[in-house]
Amino acid sequence: MNTIENLKWRYATKKFSGQRIDAEDLNKILEATNLSASSTGLQPFRIFVVENEELRKELGAGSFNPQIVQSSHLLVFAAHNKITLAHIENYMAHIAQQRDIPVEALADFKAALVGGILSRSDEENFNWAARQAYIALGTALIAAAELQIDSTPMEGFDAAKFDTLLQLEEKGLRSVVILALGYRDTENDGFVNLKKVRLDLADLVTFVQ
Amino acid sequence: MNTIENLKWRYATKKFSGQRIDAEDLNKILEATNLSASSTGLQPFRIFVVENEELRKELGAGSFNPQIVQSSHLLVFAAHNKITLAHIENYMAHIAQQRDIPVEALADFKAALVGGILSRSDEENFNWAARQAYIALGTALIAAAELQIDSTPMEGFDAAKFDTLLQLEEKGLRSVVILALGYRDTENDGFVNLKKVRLDLADLVTFVQ
Repeated sequence: MNTIENLKWRYATKKFSGQRIDAEDLNKILEATNLSASSTGLQPFRIFVVENEELRKELGAGSFNPQIVQSSHLLVFAAHNKITLAHIENYMAHIAQQRDIPVEALADFKAALVGGILSRSDEENFNWAARQAYIALGTALIAAAELQIDSTPMEGFDAAKFDTLLQLEEKGLRSVVILALGYRDTENDGFVNLKKVRLDLADLVTFVQ
Repeated sequence: MNTIENLKWRYATKKFSGQRIDAEDLNKILEATNLSASSTGLQPFRIFVVENEELRKELGAGSFNPQIVQSSHLLVFAAHNKITLAHIENYMAHIAQQRDIPVEALADFKAALVGGILSRSDEENFNWAARQAYIALGTALIAAAELQIDSTPMEGFDAAKFDTLLQLEEKGLRSVVILALGYRDTENDGFVNLKKVRLDLADLVTFVQ
């Protein structure tokens, strides 16, 4: 299975070479990520692609992760900090337009979303939205590996600073996870040849009788 | 890109045929899922595979999701409800064993994990663990699609009942998301031919200047 081989090939890259990712390859990774599943299909998150070196220096200042600056591109996954009726209505309008149906045909689906999502607190919905972003992160990792593009997902970043510098609050978003993309520096990354450590499958998975 | 094609092929299956998944294919999906990235590599979640029909009837009773019962296999992703020093120490021992190094060589890494993870509340760590499970969910969806196996991720299930029936609490786990696997009932699933709706890429992604 290609996915298994691709995931065995990838590792959390510690040191990137200076090589840049083609716009076409980057677009493929983003397109795959956009095809990720999300609960109810709402896609309650957005992705910011940062290439500008000055901005990345600011974002990465004081961080333990040089990948923020050294990678080719940095992807910032940001989740909606609240879900509103407008989000749901925009989504319904988009489905209706895409499937060429009247929006009224979606009344039951809309009612289910309004009842399910808007009854939760903003914090619950933010955590829910963040989880959906992590499905997309999983997709991005696989899509990158398929193109032999290296990647480092990172949670240890200054989210408040990212939100400010990327003006996420004004957009109703909060950064939740970031992903550095580029090419491994095979000579200088001591982690390249380390054995990948995962649970024995029998420790991860229980077959319930 | 295969991942793009595979993700275009998949959809949240509403009606499964009775066809069962081969043990070998199921194992590939689980193996790929085990290769998913997780923060610090800790893999703070477990997967339960439920095939038994009686148990699935109990789990699915009162649910809006017939897929819980009708699919071939049901995967339950459960996150650790707290992270303890023992989790971290077991992980260090596992790395040391896998890489054939003394566990003392991991002292700095261990200290970073202890400092970072054990300083957070149990609830924060549970939410963090759940997010890692969602990366794995994203992998499972892609691995299944690569084998032309259908899938339905579901959040709308009775987590408390699942936790009880699968005895998750005793294992320090709480169910966070479930995934039905099987084969679409092409004749009877009205969703098979619906156009997949996703954001325009320009609405998902912002290239920061």
